[in-house]
Amino acid sequence: MHRQRIRNPQFWDRVVSAEDAASLIKDGMTVGMSGFTRAGEAKAVPMALAERARTDPLKITLMTGASLGNDLDKTLAEAHVLSRRMPFQADPALRKAINAGEVMFIDQHLSETVEQLRTHQIPPIDIAVIEAVAITEQGGIIPTTSVGNSASFAILADKVIIEINLSQSDELEGLHDIYIPSHRPTRQPIPVVSPESRVGFPFIPIDPNKIAAIVVTEKLDSSSTILPPDSDTRAIAGHLAEFLGNEVRKGRLTNELQPLQAGIGTIANAVMHGFIDTPFHNLKMYSEVLQDSTFDLFDAGKLDFASGSSITLSAQKYQQVITELSRYKHQLILRPQEISNHPEVIRRLGLICINTALEFDIYGNVNSTHVGGTHMMNGIGGSGDFARNAHLSVFVTKSIAKNGKISSVVPMVSHVDHTEHDVDILITETGLADLRGLAPRERAQTIIANCAHPSYRDDLADYYRRAVIRGGHTPHLIEEAFAWHAAFREHGTMKPGA
Amino acid sequence: MHRQRIRNPQFWDRVVSAEDAASLIKDGMTVGMSGFTRAGEAKAVPMALAERARTDPLKITLMTGASLGNDLDKTLAEAHVLSRRMPFQADPALRKAINAGEVMFIDQHLSETVEQLRTHQIPPIDIAVIEAVAITEQGGIIPTTSVGNSASFAILADKVIIEINLSQSDELEGLHDIYIPSHRPTRQPIPVVSPESRVGFPFIPIDPNKIAAIVVTEKLDSSSTILPPDSDTRAIAGHLAEFLGNEVRKGRLTNELQPLQAGIGTIANAVMHGFIDTPFHNLKMYSEVLQDSTFDLFDAGKLDFASGSSITLSAQKYQQVITELSRYKHQLILRPQEISNHPEVIRRLGLICINTALEFDIYGNVNSTHVGGTHMMNGIGGSGDFARNAHLSVFVTKSIAKNGKISSVVPMVSHVDHTEHDVDILITETGLADLRGLAPRERAQTIIANCAHPSYRDDLADYYRRAVIRGGHTPHLIEEAFAWHAAFREHGTMKPGA
Repeated sequence: MHRQRIRNPQFWDRVVSAEDAASLIKDGMTVGMSGFTRAGEAKAVPMALAERARTDPLKITLMTGASLGNDLDKTLAEAHVLSRRMPFQADPALRKAINAGEVMFIDQHLSETVEQLRTHQIPPIDIAVIEAVAITEQGGIIPTTSVGNSASFAILADKVIIEINLSQSDELEGLHDIYIPSHRPTRQPIPVVSPESRVGFPFIPIDPNKIAAIVVTEKLDSSSTILPPDSDTRAIAGHLAEFLGNEVRKGRLTNELQPLQAGIGTIANAVMHGFIDTPFHNLKMYSEVLQDSTFDLFDAGKLDFASGSSITLSAQKYQQVITELSRYKHQLILRPQEISNHPEVIRRLGLICINTALEFDIYGNVNSTHVGGTHMMNGIGGSGDFARNAHLSVFVTKSIAKNGKISSVVPMVSHVDHTEHDVDILITETGLADLRGLAPRERAQTIIANCAHPSYRDDLADYYRRAVIRGGHTPHLIEEAFAWHAAFREHGTMKPGA
Repeated sequence: MHRQRIRNPQFWDRVVSAEDAASLIKDGMTVGMSGFTRAGEAKAVPMALAERARTDPLKITLMTGASLGNDLDKTLAEAHVLSRRMPFQADPALRKAINAGEVMFIDQHLSETVEQLRTHQIPPIDIAVIEAVAITEQGGIIPTTSVGNSASFAILADKVIIEINLSQSDELEGLHDIYIPSHRPTRQPIPVVSPESRVGFPFIPIDPNKIAAIVVTEKLDSSSTILPPDSDTRAIAGHLAEFLGNEVRKGRLTNELQPLQAGIGTIANAVMHGFIDTPFHNLKMYSEVLQDSTFDLFDAGKLDFASGSSITLSAQKYQQVITELSRYKHQLILRPQEISNHPEVIRRLGLICINTALEFDIYGNVNSTHVGGTHMMNGIGGSGDFARNAHLSVFVTKSIAKNGKISSVVPMVSHVDHTEHDVDILITETGLADLRGLAPRERAQTIIANCAHPSYRDDLADYYRRAVIRGGHTPHLIEEAFAWHAAFREHGTMKPGA
């Protein structure tokens, strides 16, 4: 069967075992692998590499699109194969190694990695390992459920290993739109002018002589781990819908809104799902990850088109979508993450962007990544690409965590991923703060009143009141700004006086 | 003489006194005025408004391009005319009012203000007050030494007051390129593909019926206040030149480099001036403010072209440039700040961006705005627009301030304007840290070793060493992270144990 997927017989003799392919990867190499938010990652070669490392220790720099499924980051981290990892991850075992200083993690805006590669500002890719549905007659690679950084990795690498995954539907062919921006400083505009714009090839064009090995696999993508909506996430979705309804009434938006982006995860997925029960219609998405909610919105007749860089679904949704892919296909495009997340395109299209905060402060600065200001959770991902260039930059989170021992609204965030300049709207289950056109002192009052959990509201107001006495554009008690974080570290709760 | 500058006689009877024009501005209005980095601001009407407020108190929201000259922000602040001010300022008296909470200051990325105005996300402009060289036959406004936000203010305002400044050379005509992006979500690419691209009109096209008053003035722009290069700024320029030379040797750049941007102020101007003594040639600028160094580089035969949003010069340089403007004119364009600072264009052109930090931390986060984490200095200006989208994002500062009582390199910045994701290169007089492709722990080591002042180096290393024991991707002692700032506040020096 795999010979049908390798359309030029001259490539057939390059089919080898995963172990043989992995043997091309040498100690010290930089390896670029496919994979974006648990979708479309190379599966067999990295597993074989981890296995080999048990007897033949080696270290590599691993670049991907974003996070990997099938416990690959866990397996590679535990096999001590990773010396450096970029630009994103979401695995508990790898996270542990990163926070212990064993793996050097370079946390990047997802649009920027290949720009740095192309200009030789970071070490070059020695080998790319890319999962594919098929290889075209000319040696072009047809990706599977994600594009991520695969196109640039394959184009820039010295050698390419292709994993033909027979379990990935050949209906995926035609979904991808591979466009690589031209060289600077003579680059031309990126011609994407709507989520539907097709501007590139449906495959990754590479020099076929670079195909060093082909491996045949059958493993499925991992399912997404999102939780179903709960009362808090429904409340957050409700606040957003009410706010957008007001924007429509004020003539700032129409009921078609503007193209939507949503970060990965339970809250963003629930918020998107909430659009089913709104008066908005003929919606479009220009996002990174297309989750269950995207297809729920298609099925509800609410969504006309979705552009992303990957499709990451729950097990149940995956079965439905993949068997009916031909039905959805004319409404979908998968792009390189450089394009799905490109500042040029995001700003041009005027996106409404919904991303998740770990914590935010009374002035609207957002921490998306660092627990306690020090320990990496996943990475900034695309949130910076989107929030900075959005028409409306929305951040959502529940107002408390750990049964109320953590307030998601704090005097000062312990790490800044998004500055107040890049945050328009903050939403928790308790309410929404519209920060547009407000100075920091005004921001503090609306954030405390609308977004803080009742059990922390007075404490935040007290901090703010005492800070204002000292003055300043952004009043703070600098010696006390992290007292809540320090208290949680020492006593297991942020609650002052607890 | 002013009648030659008002080219359609039907507008002649709209010439009134500054006082009469100012009377059109009512309490509670939002007023958009020309002016960007002390260049091309409306001069007579705001002065008349401040004067009027002595007997007829009123409050307005004032939007400009950036900072104003001729002590206008001081005069307006001291007359208590300003209730809100955006998106930038650089005046000590206004700063005092902002930090006292008397003026609500909205500190914005300079590319974003008119995007928010156009989409009605902030209150609309009631009246625009724009300085002009002349008014065309059709009522088009020819700006003077800056464009800033003048074009969108005039286009979006209900009424427009034009100040014809007879002291501004009519040679300025033809320098401006007025392009306004089309509406979203159907916007087309901005067609600027090089610093030289001319894509718009040489005047601001408005409905002539909106011209409510014309005032004739003669006051000059204020001179810039930059200081001449000193040994520290020369050392910073030297480190940058050496670094760029290495980039050329590694084949990452050519000796023509890529278009340059430099922030306003003494250090950035000195660094740009330093290019005179480098092997780089046929340089181009795509920047905000064109300072003395731009014209020094033209005169030295180093610079081929400069695109900006304003020209701000020392008194001496101004006299030379303005009398020889015809000589420079074919090498200059002044654009709306939305275009000079547009993420789309900055990323496309691949700029080398040099901006000034107030302080930066051992992980590469930059504070550009807040003294002690609370008190506003000037504003983020365009630094975020450029740093985020640069090919190379460089921040410069002297390693110490206040005779060594302040270290510009701190354990954690007390306010974040630019996150580590947006900072490639840090330079002080002591050296340069190349952060590209480095994880936070690696960043800390190179920043401490290369950029910290010797008198603080061991203290920073000690903080880092103790933080690493606790672990984390970005190790910190959260309860001690601002100890240096607190010490400065209490004891007047950051020096631990002093």
